[in-house]
Amino acid sequence: MDIYSNRLQAVHQAMVTWGLDTLILTPGAAMRYLTGFSEEGFERLLCLVVPDDRPCVFITPSLNAEQVRHNPAGVNDIREWGDAEGWEKTLRELSSQLDLDIGIVGIDEGMSARFLLRIQEILSTTLFKTSEPVFTECRIQKDAGELASLQHASEITDRAIAAAVSSCSEGKTEKEVALAINNAIALSGASTSFETIVSSGPNSALPHHTPGSRKLRTGDIVNLDFGARFDGYCGDITRVVSIGEPSQAASEIYDIVFRAHQAAKAAAYPGATTHSVDSAARAVITEAGYGEFFIHRTGHGIGLDDHEQPNIVSGSYQKLLPGMCFSIEPGIYLPGKFGIRLENIYTITNEGCRSFNQEIPAKLTTAEGSVD
Amino acid sequence: MDIYSNRLQAVHQAMVTWGLDTLILTPGAAMRYLTGFSEEGFERLLCLVVPDDRPCVFITPSLNAEQVRHNPAGVNDIREWGDAEGWEKTLRELSSQLDLDIGIVGIDEGMSARFLLRIQEILSTTLFKTSEPVFTECRIQKDAGELASLQHASEITDRAIAAAVSSCSEGKTEKEVALAINNAIALSGASTSFETIVSSGPNSALPHHTPGSRKLRTGDIVNLDFGARFDGYCGDITRVVSIGEPSQAASEIYDIVFRAHQAAKAAAYPGATTHSVDSAARAVITEAGYGEFFIHRTGHGIGLDDHEQPNIVSGSYQKLLPGMCFSIEPGIYLPGKFGIRLENIYTITNEGCRSFNQEIPAKLTTAEGSVD
Repeated sequence: MDIYSNRLQAVHQAMVTWGLDTLILTPGAAMRYLTGFSEEGFERLLCLVVPDDRPCVFITPSLNAEQVRHNPAGVNDIREWGDAEGWEKTLRELSSQLDLDIGIVGIDEGMSARFLLRIQEILSTTLFKTSEPVFTECRIQKDAGELASLQHASEITDRAIAAAVSSCSEGKTEKEVALAINNAIALSGASTSFETIVSSGPNSALPHHTPGSRKLRTGDIVNLDFGARFDGYCGDITRVVSIGEPSQAASEIYDIVFRAHQAAKAAAYPGATTHSVDSAARAVITEAGYGEFFIHRTGHGIGLDDHEQPNIVSGSYQKLLPGMCFSIEPGIYLPGKFGIRLENIYTITNEGCRSFNQEIPAKLTTAEGSVD
Repeated sequence: MDIYSNRLQAVHQAMVTWGLDTLILTPGAAMRYLTGFSEEGFERLLCLVVPDDRPCVFITPSLNAEQVRHNPAGVNDIREWGDAEGWEKTLRELSSQLDLDIGIVGIDEGMSARFLLRIQEILSTTLFKTSEPVFTECRIQKDAGELASLQHASEITDRAIAAAVSSCSEGKTEKEVALAINNAIALSGASTSFETIVSSGPNSALPHHTPGSRKLRTGDIVNLDFGARFDGYCGDITRVVSIGEPSQAASEIYDIVFRAHQAAKAAAYPGATTHSVDSAARAVITEAGYGEFFIHRTGHGIGLDDHEQPNIVSGSYQKLLPGMCFSIEPGIYLPGKFGIRLENIYTITNEGCRSFNQEIPAKLTTAEGSVD
């Protein structure tokens, strides 16, 4: 049996566990997991309908039909709709064939409200739930092929570090540094996993800063958070550069975050919980007096989605098992001053955890503080 | 009164028209329209709550709070939530203050199901509708400032045409051509409006092809569909290149699509309908015998979203009014052979319509068919 048949079987079992009769999946990680298909429909409904006891069905706009016909899983029940008539009639017909009106339908967590609200109107007697637990169950432990793809994505990501660091120099804008990183990834034939973050100076205190026209200058701390995507699987790292010699304050904060990262890594082994990994990082930062400035969870799962389960977060007692993959990325953010975050991604092995990335430097990387 | 107060007033009026008591908007065009704020929350709920009779409220993850506090509209009721506790409690508290449980709530059309299904659970007695008609009403006719931003975005887009065409040569991959286009846009300080499409040879018959590793070769038709975004407003054009001298068939199809484009443009004036503009393009292609190969609508509205109202589609009788902005982009797609689409964006003026872009070449542009 091929990979997609195996996955469909696992999804069918999980649908029973979670009480879902049918799934409706829009383009994204779940559709890609089940079919290998990854084209977008944007504002036109393109979806995979997964009944519990019959073959899957694609609903597609006419302009994507040729692409859908080449879906790697070989789903061959494909129903097209045209711009002039809309998709509603096609869904109604499928609904009467599959009795969607008397069932419980699991919805893709990425489906947009423009579709969901309309589907809820059309299938007014159907109960809708999220399909998320089904795919978390099936996807949370990666198989050997998935681990190899994640490793490959991380190697491409790591190779872009040099370009990222060397593009950091006084006078360069955040956008220019982001462009250098994106180009390094593109030249490896990969795409980016998410929008590259380059945050400099006071902007580095904003964990999700969008790169702008601010120019790097001597004394800046620069966070570089980026990843390459290979065969759908995501890389994700954060490295930090000081423009010119770092201040003592910056070196100290870097050291605390570095030790927090190492503590979380040491706490990540089979049977440990996501809570305990988060706590290990948080304890180091709190003991150093910066607990209130670590304003996010310690990490997130990673795979076909750049953020998926398991989240490494306080209060979540998910037990870590071999094949689970996630980031460790503690950070300290001092508003108006600077912030530092250090991130690698890991997988749980039989003994402990293994990094997909190169080791994080123990000391702040220094870039040229002046241009000739 | 500033621009955001004016817009909020218009939105409040439209909420009455469409029977909505409150809006919940996630990051995207509607939030940007009302507040100027455009950062993403990704899988964390970041939303703007718009009551009909009180000031707006932001709900934000802690890690975005500092960014939200600088929202251009000056919304100052900002409620933070942390990763360890989640956002549900914050929404419940706001709901009891605003009586969301007995109201009709308009939902952002881009909100993902991960949020909407959970909000529907929490506010189990609330009625949910799409907020789309409110924002279509407010945003469909652009004001002078918006038209200037669209013009600026189109000028940056047009300037990238030369880079796009000159990067098309035998041996280059689709991805490399896309990268050249994206870099030309980035070097103008802009971002792309959407993922650049470069479709070559038989791939050009797929309207929404994702650029891949196929290498351009002599005899290929290449469609280049891209746009720059300026101040949130989107550019969008499609140009077509032949690698080496075009075949007679390609020249003929180009000519038909070119004439269809001109016919649609001539049919676009105040008081005409979106249907009649679509029909004008479709008639040319149908008369030439290729009606079945024009597999999408003639165009889409454009503004803060790359695709918004008014759609230029058969069966839609929206009357065109000054300030409405949209693409005209007829195409003919011959499966397994090639496709050609020609796109500019336009605005309706008092007399007719005006292109934001340079004129489309009347003949196929030819690129070098061989490398030295």
